Amino acid sequence: MANQKEIPYKIYLEESEMPQAWYNVRADMKNKPAPLLNPGTGKPMTLEELSGVFCRELVEQELDNDTPYIPIPQEIRDFYKMYRPSPLVRAYCLEKKLGTPAHIYYKFEGNNTSGSHKLNSAIAQAYYAKKQGLKGVTTETGAGQWGTALSMACSYFDLDCKVFMVKVSYEQKPFRREVMRTYGASVTPSPSNTTNVGRKILEEFPGTTGSLGCAISEAVETAVTHEGYRYVLGSVLAQVLLHQSVIGLEAKAAMDKYGIKPDIIIGCAGGGSNLGGLIAPFVGQKLRGEADMRIIAVEPASCPSLTRGKYAYDFCDTGMVCPLAKMYTLGSSFIPSANHAGGLRYHGMSSIVSQLYADGYLEATSVEQTGVFEAAEMFARVEGILPAPESSHAIRVAIDEALKCKETGEEKNIVFGLTGTGYFDLVAYQKYNDGEMGDYIPTDEDIAKSLAKLPKVD
Amino acid sequence: MANQKEIPYKIYLEESEMPQAWYNVRADMKNKPAPLLNPGTGKPMTLEELSGVFCRELVEQELDNDTPYIPIPQEIRDFYKMYRPSPLVRAYCLEKKLGTPAHIYYKFEGNNTSGSHKLNSAIAQAYYAKKQGLKGVTTETGAGQWGTALSMACSYFDLDCKVFMVKVSYEQKPFRREVMRTYGASVTPSPSNTTNVGRKILEEFPGTTGSLGCAISEAVETAVTHEGYRYVLGSVLAQVLLHQSVIGLEAKAAMDKYGIKPDIIIGCAGGGSNLGGLIAPFVGQKLRGEADMRIIAVEPASCPSLTRGKYAYDFCDTGMVCPLAKMYTLGSSFIPSANHAGGLRYHGMSSIVSQLYADGYLEATSVEQTGVFEAAEMFARVEGILPAPESSHAIRVAIDEALKCKETGEEKNIVFGLTGTGYFDLVAYQKYNDGEMGDYIPTDEDIAKSLAKLPKVD
Repeated sequence: MANQKEIPYKIYLEESEMPQAWYNVRADMKNKPAPLLNPGTGKPMTLEELSGVFCRELVEQELDNDTPYIPIPQEIRDFYKMYRPSPLVRAYCLEKKLGTPAHIYYKFEGNNTSGSHKLNSAIAQAYYAKKQGLKGVTTETGAGQWGTALSMACSYFDLDCKVFMVKVSYEQKPFRREVMRTYGASVTPSPSNTTNVGRKILEEFPGTTGSLGCAISEAVETAVTHEGYRYVLGSVLAQVLLHQSVIGLEAKAAMDKYGIKPDIIIGCAGGGSNLGGLIAPFVGQKLRGEADMRIIAVEPASCPSLTRGKYAYDFCDTGMVCPLAKMYTLGSSFIPSANHAGGLRYHGMSSIVSQLYADGYLEATSVEQTGVFEAAEMFARVEGILPAPESSHAIRVAIDEALKCKETGEEKNIVFGLTGTGYFDLVAYQKYNDGEMGDYIPTDEDIAKSLAKLPKVD
Repeated sequence: MANQKEIPYKIYLEESEMPQAWYNVRADMKNKPAPLLNPGTGKPMTLEELSGVFCRELVEQELDNDTPYIPIPQEIRDFYKMYRPSPLVRAYCLEKKLGTPAHIYYKFEGNNTSGSHKLNSAIAQAYYAKKQGLKGVTTETGAGQWGTALSMACSYFDLDCKVFMVKVSYEQKPFRREVMRTYGASVTPSPSNTTNVGRKILEEFPGTTGSLGCAISEAVETAVTHEGYRYVLGSVLAQVLLHQSVIGLEAKAAMDKYGIKPDIIIGCAGGGSNLGGLIAPFVGQKLRGEADMRIIAVEPASCPSLTRGKYAYDFCDTGMVCPLAKMYTLGSSFIPSANHAGGLRYHGMSSIVSQLYADGYLEATSVEQTGVFEAAEMFARVEGILPAPESSHAIRVAIDEALKCKETGEEKNIVFGLTGTGYFDLVAYQKYNDGEMGDYIPTDEDIAKSLAKLPKVD
């Protein structure tokens, strides 16, 4: 019956239908993700140890492998109401363009000024920092999506926000920097001489344009050396995936409303925040044996942690000040080609996503950059949204799967995460428009070299 | 009863509640807007004359002062479904920040890749061009909102799209240019040597960085000299206001759903496309004596056509190839300060808006740039959307009116048009963040000088 309801272009939930609790997929995992380790002792990080760096309640969420549903505080739900629910869109025009019998849906997270899903966790982390009575938070940002999201969230709760922005992005992407400044954040190019780790790196590599790993180290050092500050992170951590579960919960509620059962769920994967959030309630069904579907993680061929990395404990940052995490990793010294556009350039992967992948609950595939932008352009032209390069990795695979359905005649339901918009990535689009974009695939030697530096853990 | 329903943060209409016809406010105007005149003969432009430049059905709409409702073709309604209905947002956080008893609402038109309301008319104009069997269309763009919208619309209907972009914007705003190219449009910096009028201007002023009036002239010349092409325009014309009535119709439907009666409606006004569209059904109520409310047109102090211009026939373009229009104008040779940010820089104003203003159906006010950005920043921080500079003119006045309510204790319903996002205006935000933004107000002499060049019409 529900199947016969005509499916609108966009399914919006009523405010009353929006999730009131986040879903913690770890509660349903038989094999829990491996704990964070203290790099000094090799032992699991304790609540106390982590609380020096992170906000207390966030650490509790980080360590909670058991509670399936964690209520979303009213203050956060109020903020969510400003830009959520995000629409689940039926890609009628893309289907027509492809001539596929498949039904394609995308959950669009780009309708907010940060331009991506990152705001879902930023507002939660800012809320808990405020609740703890902190003065402010520190973080790093590469392309700038996370920094923008965090500066918006801090502005809302009147918290100070110190962002370390990878120097090359700071200089070449001044617009995201200005959005952050408009929201009152201070933005420092990294490496900087405001931290010990920054000064050391500048001394060793005077001309360096910075890296995400280095910016993380600076942000952590600043948090622990400033009274009333903590460090916050936009991906990889279990708490982030918890907050991002709002994406999947809304998507599932929208699909349930119309009786739509997904056959394939596709998400791009850098640190795993979007993928982990989008798939959470669905992989929960798989874990509990209630439903089955294919789940595909898509990563760039230039930074293929799931498809070519090793499942091992590794450093989360270049400065090695963070705890060790067990994850699919290319090695913390791995740096993807500078010609790779957009994000998805983290050397590792969320421990939750890594464990689910190791246990066979999801597939992974990697795609090349030119194919990604080809898909992005086709999508933009027919669906009217200029997608972020990150999101376009998922579009590429969604199109490929829909074309397979065209061959087989199968009417599959394909759902993918459209994590954000590409308004700040037009230098990359220009390269593509000018035919100057290439594909950048690391050699086996490149990867072996950085994997050789993995820390020794029993 | 309806008043007691709790009003959500965002009111969305169901697809079934979306407008099926545009509203033509001219049908309810006792004093019709003055007709376009042939600059050669001084006589009203005929259907035949206009059809050489514009698409036939659009000309019919342009000349139709009588039909109150014109059905929206299904193909356009299908496209609208991809990004409409746009939300009517209750600005709860802004109200709280201001401590005002007023209820503030905004109709947000920025949730599409063109970043503004311009897409509403672009898709209609592209549709009629396609229906007429044309190969393509030509147009001009300044800041790039209209050019982006038109390139999206043309891509959807597989029409060629030739955009003449004011040279200074072409060079300084490469990102909008790349969005247009991604949608397959050809973008030519204006003045160019591809047209007679362009060559003439380049000869006379070799170093010129171009103007909107000049780009219009080039686009019109290209349309009339290329087989299968017509010229399309994103504002000023009656047909554009007709298409933009979808904004007001949706806003009114959303308000009716919750029993909200607007006391004040505020829109920014450049050529009048957003203002005319937003206010259409409400001013219709005023014209028919069914309801009353204040309507405020907000223009920049640097380009104050309604508040300091003259109501007279004038040229629409610098090259004087377009028909004459009766409107509030600063004179077609008036050029606002180059330091004025964003759009709203047209020397004239829609004939419909002009006549309504002359007849006392709306008020007009002008605001200075620094106050506009102050309002923009406050709005961005509390409502989470980085507004376009254009839209921020309306925000400024909405805030001022809400603060007046705070003094008087009145619980007024204030509605304003948030026409778009500011993602491509960060150079202006940077100036504001750096304290380098000024206010630019033309002197009486400046205005008198350009008004002295008005054409002589009986």
